Amino acid sequence: MLVRARNPLNIGAAARAMSNFGYTDLRVVNDYDVPFQDARSAIDAAPVLESAKQFATVAEAVADCTLVYGTTALGERRLLHPVELLRDAQPFVHGADGRVAILFGSEKTGLSAEEMSHCHRLLTIPMHQGGVSMNLGQAVAVCLYEMIREGAEPQRPLPPTPLAATGEEVTRMETLLSEMLEESGYAHRYPANMRDDTQRRMVRRMTLHREDVEAWMGVLRQVLWKLRKG
Amino acid sequence: MLVRARNPLNIGAAARAMSNFGYTDLRVVNDYDVPFQDARSAIDAAPVLESAKQFATVAEAVADCTLVYGTTALGERRLLHPVELLRDAQPFVHGADGRVAILFGSEKTGLSAEEMSHCHRLLTIPMHQGGVSMNLGQAVAVCLYEMIREGAEPQRPLPPTPLAATGEEVTRMETLLSEMLEESGYAHRYPANMRDDTQRRMVRRMTLHREDVEAWMGVLRQVLWKLRKG
Repeated sequence: MLVRARNPLNIGAAARAMSNFGYTDLRVVNDYDVPFQDARSAIDAAPVLESAKQFATVAEAVADCTLVYGTTALGERRLLHPVELLRDAQPFVHGADGRVAILFGSEKTGLSAEEMSHCHRLLTIPMHQGGVSMNLGQAVAVCLYEMIREGAEPQRPLPPTPLAATGEEVTRMETLLSEMLEESGYAHRYPANMRDDTQRRMVRRMTLHREDVEAWMGVLRQVLWKLRKG
Repeated sequence: MLVRARNPLNIGAAARAMSNFGYTDLRVVNDYDVPFQDARSAIDAAPVLESAKQFATVAEAVADCTLVYGTTALGERRLLHPVELLRDAQPFVHGADGRVAILFGSEKTGLSAEEMSHCHRLLTIPMHQGGVSMNLGQAVAVCLYEMIREGAEPQRPLPPTPLAATGEEVTRMETLLSEMLEESGYAHRYPANMRDDTQRRMVRRMTLHREDVEAWMGVLRQVLWKLRKG
């Protein structure tokens, strides 16, 4: 819920963040009509903007909500509400029994005391001390990310993790490596580096995948062939 | 690290997100000079932009990094890297032994296969299935939020949580409430609602704070005074 957002681009950016994280019910509280109308035509995330509702007051906008969170940058104003870090607000939002609203104030001044008085609780995004104020669209994105974070699944299946090579596969590669070190004269020149356990550790630190073991064995075989032929 | 970011406003937005979360080392990989220079003058977060470095290639930009993460929206392209959800990438970033880079590709096409080949791992921000592509500044904000999330402290001390009322305080209020219900004639009219345990539950469901108990007792006393006087 955006209260007195002044910049239509920010309304569009908030709608886009909602769309990214699967939220659709955008509400805008404004005493005039302009930025909302501009945002409608400005950006993608069109379905969220099309179904967005405009209200004249916070009271009307939250009328059907059972839990209302206000966002605050913890400025100088004395806050008369419980305030949580964003990550600690998430269980309250998920545990709520009905519709939950998260209110974002205007870019310049945030939520007024009057607007906050419609909230049950406040949340704050933890930021660096000297940080400048947060961009409205980014604040919406970060809050909604936190809300979906815990149960999140990737939007498409993740590619299978490459299979790690087994001990046997690594050992076969090690044998070829030893042969190459012998044939190339390395073993003769640096006999101290030829201890079995030294080589074994060096190869295992590479934490090779099965496919990579195959590829490296191809390389080693080719080099061995060339060394033996030459 | 922004690779081929086209829109100077996005570079500014990324710098602002970095500043918000306490990161300062912005690197931009671009084969031409324009957007970076525009961003410099465009937005606040000036210190991050001023100290930002420009590189011609990804290889040069990551030369001093020991872990390089690429970001991906899991498009159609076959990915040849391990991919984690953002929340699962955080331990790798924090556990790394040296400088870590997170690469963001261009707004339109993301990272190319060549650019990804400089990465050790990939991460993806979990998004809604039908979601439009994510705004670059928002993606940077969400990734950096995840990185600071766990150890985050509020940028200013949170206001003290209001003290919950004790059983004794609540009981004192309950006594005044009972007196008001008697004096007003409510007890006579709805005797079924006057059971002690009914009233006790109703008051306790309000989970009152100490200050609020005081305030409500003031109200009840005033009403009682008026009822008795009338």
